[in-house]
Amino acid sequence: MALAQSSDELTIRKIYDKSLAEGQSYQMLDYLCHKIGARLSGSPGAAAAVEWSRHVMEDSGFDSVWLQPVMVPHWVRGQKEIGRIINSKKMGTVELSVCALGGSVGTGLEGVAANVVEVKNFDELKSLGTQKVKGKIVFFNRPMDPTQIQTFSAYGGAVNQRGSGASEAAKYGAVGVIVRSMGVNQEDYPHTGGLRYETGVPMIPAMAVSTKHADLLSRLVKDDAGLSFYMEMHCQTLDEAPSFNVVGQIRGSEFPDEIIAVGGHLDSWDLGQGAHDDGAGCVQSIEVLRIFKVMGYKPKRTIRAVMFMNEENGLRGGRKYAELARQNKEKHLAAIESDRGGFTPRGFNFTPDSAHREKIISTIQGWKRLLEPYGLTEFSTPGGGADIGPLARDRVTVIGFIPDSQRYFNYHHTPVDTFDKVDKRELELGAASMAALVYLIDQHGLK
Amino acid sequence: MALAQSSDELTIRKIYDKSLAEGQSYQMLDYLCHKIGARLSGSPGAAAAVEWSRHVMEDSGFDSVWLQPVMVPHWVRGQKEIGRIINSKKMGTVELSVCALGGSVGTGLEGVAANVVEVKNFDELKSLGTQKVKGKIVFFNRPMDPTQIQTFSAYGGAVNQRGSGASEAAKYGAVGVIVRSMGVNQEDYPHTGGLRYETGVPMIPAMAVSTKHADLLSRLVKDDAGLSFYMEMHCQTLDEAPSFNVVGQIRGSEFPDEIIAVGGHLDSWDLGQGAHDDGAGCVQSIEVLRIFKVMGYKPKRTIRAVMFMNEENGLRGGRKYAELARQNKEKHLAAIESDRGGFTPRGFNFTPDSAHREKIISTIQGWKRLLEPYGLTEFSTPGGGADIGPLARDRVTVIGFIPDSQRYFNYHHTPVDTFDKVDKRELELGAASMAALVYLIDQHGLK
Repeated sequence: MALAQSSDELTIRKIYDKSLAEGQSYQMLDYLCHKIGARLSGSPGAAAAVEWSRHVMEDSGFDSVWLQPVMVPHWVRGQKEIGRIINSKKMGTVELSVCALGGSVGTGLEGVAANVVEVKNFDELKSLGTQKVKGKIVFFNRPMDPTQIQTFSAYGGAVNQRGSGASEAAKYGAVGVIVRSMGVNQEDYPHTGGLRYETGVPMIPAMAVSTKHADLLSRLVKDDAGLSFYMEMHCQTLDEAPSFNVVGQIRGSEFPDEIIAVGGHLDSWDLGQGAHDDGAGCVQSIEVLRIFKVMGYKPKRTIRAVMFMNEENGLRGGRKYAELARQNKEKHLAAIESDRGGFTPRGFNFTPDSAHREKIISTIQGWKRLLEPYGLTEFSTPGGGADIGPLARDRVTVIGFIPDSQRYFNYHHTPVDTFDKVDKRELELGAASMAALVYLIDQHGLK
Repeated sequence: MALAQSSDELTIRKIYDKSLAEGQSYQMLDYLCHKIGARLSGSPGAAAAVEWSRHVMEDSGFDSVWLQPVMVPHWVRGQKEIGRIINSKKMGTVELSVCALGGSVGTGLEGVAANVVEVKNFDELKSLGTQKVKGKIVFFNRPMDPTQIQTFSAYGGAVNQRGSGASEAAKYGAVGVIVRSMGVNQEDYPHTGGLRYETGVPMIPAMAVSTKHADLLSRLVKDDAGLSFYMEMHCQTLDEAPSFNVVGQIRGSEFPDEIIAVGGHLDSWDLGQGAHDDGAGCVQSIEVLRIFKVMGYKPKRTIRAVMFMNEENGLRGGRKYAELARQNKEKHLAAIESDRGGFTPRGFNFTPDSAHREKIISTIQGWKRLLEPYGLTEFSTPGGGADIGPLARDRVTVIGFIPDSQRYFNYHHTPVDTFDKVDKRELELGAASMAALVYLIDQHGLK
């Protein structure tokens, strides 16, 4: 046992050495961000990213690399949106920093002009009712709570405005929606992100406004019930488009039928380069297998890197992967996802296969001692990730990689989610952390 | 006991709420960086920073604010340095990105031109000996070890080249020194930092070269023993200058004679804005007391914010503070320093008063449960900080605030240590973490 532990310690140390001294994750991300850039589902960028990741994994000498065809939604933004305060008492006409929310209908060339009514939540909207909302533009302006230590908790407490605000407002006759961006600081740029229209409710256009301009709009609306706002958006949803998940694999030497998957999503929003969201997760996942190759580590189980398509506005890739796994009677021991940016690692959260819950928790907690020297101190349940969620329904243990969350929502879904926002060491430490966990699962199983 | 714990939990939660929702640390740092900027000891910037911090603490309503006079070294860089490869076979003349090391002598107007001999460490230098070093420029090119998880360990393993390289090389007759910058990535800019000349050894000029150009120089020197290098630096050491530590205090209500000090250093190198090093530590320290004031928290013990002068090239402020404490028979319970940048908090390291070592360790470890929810998981010995080191000799428990270290050496001592490199939330979390620890020491003592 002492020997086994020592061998784990040595291998994990070697994984970190390889990632930090000879890693390729940063160089891969450089290419993905600068040569390909934005890659919303159905776009030429997404197609290029599919080809790129296939080539990278083939060139890295993985045992096999293949594509999983999947149809994806195809939404396009069209020309730059307009969000304009027309007639404020204090400042007259003011152009705001806005963008259409992903999936929104457009306004047509004629745009939408209406008075603005500000609310903080759906209860407030309801209490205003049809009488005060009908014919108006509803402005959802509840900030992310800055006192949450984990920014994802603050995001979770605010994002229903973006996801469901348009349909909720439309129920009371609103003609358009402005949503405060899901950012925690004072920013000049808006955050896009997906909305979902509720069936049977009129689809009205919805845009995000930068947090700075949300505050401005709020001040101007308070003084001025007659304030009019003009929104013009040329976005539209086209026919679904063919696309792919990209999968690379190293075949297990002892238990080839047991699969450990590690992945990120290849698609990104259209405004930036998808550097943290989720180029980082993609290159880290490829790097896990690449590190094993260059170390000469031959896994007992089959290790897969999965580039999921369409996490941002449909989750079609994640669903397709789980569907194929079921169809092919594949046995996944675990699936790990990195989709919280390329920041300094803090740990993992996970949802164990319910049939072996206690055993799996104690196995993973038992590895804490091996991983703490690398700054991995958080091992909590539940957890996972959007793309691997559908696997969890088939009792696969799903694991989310948890990096430091403080800066994530500075960049998430914005024009500034670019390569220069990623720190090389932080990204490399993340890749090594994922590889270390995959190594431990490969060596010892989970139960 | 359950009640006491719950009250601690509530107060700590309130500290974080204040810092994250209504904090002033970021705004203070904005002013310090943009209105004052660089503030090397003896410079007008340092004098302005003294006045600024005095005013800020007075305006924050601290019970008393005073200056501690201290004489400081006064080194000036003069006009931009030149570091030039004169005659490389492959590239001819190449200008390198260089800067004088702090404290270095200048070259005079005539500069220094000589062949270059590269070494990785002092042993290599010694084995070359006078025969191969005399009349040459020694190029110290040992990189920071990228595989160290804590970047401060990598720094510790490389910095003797900067600190002692000039004198070591001069012992063998070298005429100048080039030191690879203390940075872990490929960078375009050099890192300055202090050197120490050994008494009785000729003082030769020493400059830092960017990591990118260190690699270039190394490649060119390998191919070309006849390569000549020209260095020109106009730096000089002027007469010592009068300056000050700045101290602000809230008087304790129960044990006013027991002091808890929290501080950073007000001086910075001259190339950037001293944002992470150590503007962050200064504003966080002021913020600790400011948060207590706005919370209406009345400390039992006396709490001090100390802006130490001259950490970078002399430590005169830290020594003066300890000297005055001894002279005035002050009883310091603990001194906490923040001088590792305004990054996400990870914990504290500390060196306990040796007379109560085990008790203090167990007291601080006992607070882990209260601080872990805020991401503070590291509580290790030994530790402390440069400015509070002199207090430790008088058996004061010294405590270093430990934020995430991954990005620190991207900025440390460089032109890019600027306000935009500091994340608002990360900075605020640091201030709150320090305030939480000060609160616990104030409430419960250390032994």
